[in-house]
Amino acid sequence: MNAMEVGVSSNQPSVYAVILAGGGGTRLWPLSRMKHPKHLLALNGNDTMLAQTCARVRPLIPNERVMVITVAEHAQAARDQLPDIPSSNFVVEPVGRGTAPCIGLMALLIRKRDPNAIMISLHADHVVEREEEFHRVLQAAVQAAQDNHLVTVGIQPAYPETGYGYIERGAPLGRAGGQDIYRVERFTEKPDLETARSFVQSGRFFWNSGIFIWKVSAILDEIRRLLPELYLQLLDIESALDTPQQSEVVERVWPTVRAVSIDVGIMERAHDVVVIPADFGWSDVGCWSSIASLLPTDSEGNVAQGEHVVLDCKDTFVYSSGRLVAVLGLHGMVVIDAGDAVLVCPKDRAQDVKKVVEELKRLGKVQYL
Amino acid sequence: MNAMEVGVSSNQPSVYAVILAGGGGTRLWPLSRMKHPKHLLALNGNDTMLAQTCARVRPLIPNERVMVITVAEHAQAARDQLPDIPSSNFVVEPVGRGTAPCIGLMALLIRKRDPNAIMISLHADHVVEREEEFHRVLQAAVQAAQDNHLVTVGIQPAYPETGYGYIERGAPLGRAGGQDIYRVERFTEKPDLETARSFVQSGRFFWNSGIFIWKVSAILDEIRRLLPELYLQLLDIESALDTPQQSEVVERVWPTVRAVSIDVGIMERAHDVVVIPADFGWSDVGCWSSIASLLPTDSEGNVAQGEHVVLDCKDTFVYSSGRLVAVLGLHGMVVIDAGDAVLVCPKDRAQDVKKVVEELKRLGKVQYL
Repeated sequence: MNAMEVGVSSNQPSVYAVILAGGGGTRLWPLSRMKHPKHLLALNGNDTMLAQTCARVRPLIPNERVMVITVAEHAQAARDQLPDIPSSNFVVEPVGRGTAPCIGLMALLIRKRDPNAIMISLHADHVVEREEEFHRVLQAAVQAAQDNHLVTVGIQPAYPETGYGYIERGAPLGRAGGQDIYRVERFTEKPDLETARSFVQSGRFFWNSGIFIWKVSAILDEIRRLLPELYLQLLDIESALDTPQQSEVVERVWPTVRAVSIDVGIMERAHDVVVIPADFGWSDVGCWSSIASLLPTDSEGNVAQGEHVVLDCKDTFVYSSGRLVAVLGLHGMVVIDAGDAVLVCPKDRAQDVKKVVEELKRLGKVQYL
Repeated sequence: MNAMEVGVSSNQPSVYAVILAGGGGTRLWPLSRMKHPKHLLALNGNDTMLAQTCARVRPLIPNERVMVITVAEHAQAARDQLPDIPSSNFVVEPVGRGTAPCIGLMALLIRKRDPNAIMISLHADHVVEREEEFHRVLQAAVQAAQDNHLVTVGIQPAYPETGYGYIERGAPLGRAGGQDIYRVERFTEKPDLETARSFVQSGRFFWNSGIFIWKVSAILDEIRRLLPELYLQLLDIESALDTPQQSEVVERVWPTVRAVSIDVGIMERAHDVVVIPADFGWSDVGCWSSIASLLPTDSEGNVAQGEHVVLDCKDTFVYSSGRLVAVLGLHGMVVIDAGDAVLVCPKDRAQDVKKVVEELKRLGKVQYL
């Protein structure tokens, strides 16, 4: 038994990890495609982000308590990536309905195995640079969750990022596992640059990492209170859980579920939400410029991966999946060569790569999506 | 018989065209490769530049008097491009020795067929937009060449190009075929920008088109006077001309020939050089930005060929030989996708693409050359 494991002694609840592997990542086109979503890419090493995410929780949680929810299109790839996770721990979402229904379904499944369980919900396609710190924060969060709080992990903002949601802390609530804990004052959507700057200066705002820790009973109570329709739909499903009919029932009920994110559906209105500030080198690697910032640069700030020639360039990111990419005299640019497509844009337009994907849809060029 | 043909009446000399198809074009990498030189590209239409060059002289000169000199590597491709030109009109240069030896060899060959012949020497990989004007100028040049002048065609400069050599005109010599003719004061190499600007402002300087018209006897006389060693080597070859031994003798003599351009070896020092100013939309299409300037643009000045998505771009040139090239937010850039390589650079660095080719050589990545 691993000394770091949490929740393994008889008088503690069991702790589960739920990895949300739902797909997406249009801002990482052309590497990320519909059939090859962001969490199946190996952007910062040899392993896919899904495999890295799973490996990251493994020192805390045994394989039989790591659960994965994904979509039909990527289910086999997810299983292939995580051969040590029991097959019954993979759940397939028939159609995308956002994070609140997914988390509700997974909480239901876990409650059936252990009504006292705590679950850690996290995304399959985020990066963490300092894993020990990550583990310390999660252990503290599990302690805090035992007091029925809905626990969020707030990332100390390194700069005024406009691509993230923010969490404003309220009154201090004390400490757990050596970490400060605060009540949450409010959640905010992605701010404009000026607002983001004021957030960072205030010292009271954190990036919303999308990592949540709570008792399954606590989150299901809040779903019952705040999303009662969803709760009834989940009860419909509950009777079939862990039976051969589970998939069939989920497939029948799921299309009737209203799509909503956990942030909007629950967190912004929940009673007892707390935040643990953290600083473990987290990134959602949501666009090419954020990936570039994770990788080692040359003396001119360039990052180059794959076959390349880089001449007289500064602050430029070149990625090739096979062919030769030659760049000359570029400043602050992104050049991505992936399969049957090449993308070129300035780093400060990296967030708009999704517009390219939208344009491809509009033009009916579905083979590139 | 075509009414436009020159030099077909019995009291006029026969006129030959010599097309120099020697290869090169490193500034058009990655489309132009060692095995696929610039004159074999179809950059501004469906035909290769070689085929366009030949078609352009055809209204003036019958196929049996169109001669082509090329290198072994491209000889078959040149024949394939020009199926109507007699096989015996193709000459293969065993090793590259510059334009002076090539022109000397071709003059020798033509002199053997007709000692009074006039030859028009021109490059296989230049563009002419207004062919009727081109024909008028060449007809005037042929008239001037009958007076034993070495005739050059000077292009009215549209802007201070630093990538071209210039010809300065001297005293007016009169008119031929409705065109003004001037003595040449001097040839200059590629100038810096300030010098180029003063050239253009003066009104006395023209771009050196590399198009020359002269009696074969006149150019051979000047080769004998200015490049006596080359002349003796040419005489060595002469005895074998139009015999089965021609190739063998050329192959033996050619490696001993000193490489020199016609401009440096002859034109800069020749006695009787004249220039006919011309304005027929000439370009040597030497780099990607000059090709872009020949092609139709959208309302933002973009040129896009092949599979592409262009969003929020200005003054940008996108070329794809097959794959999708998606560009977003680019200004004044060149993006070329060709086979196993992609090039990205600003338009104003297009002249430096040869540095990429040099770097590939240095790195030993010969498969991309």
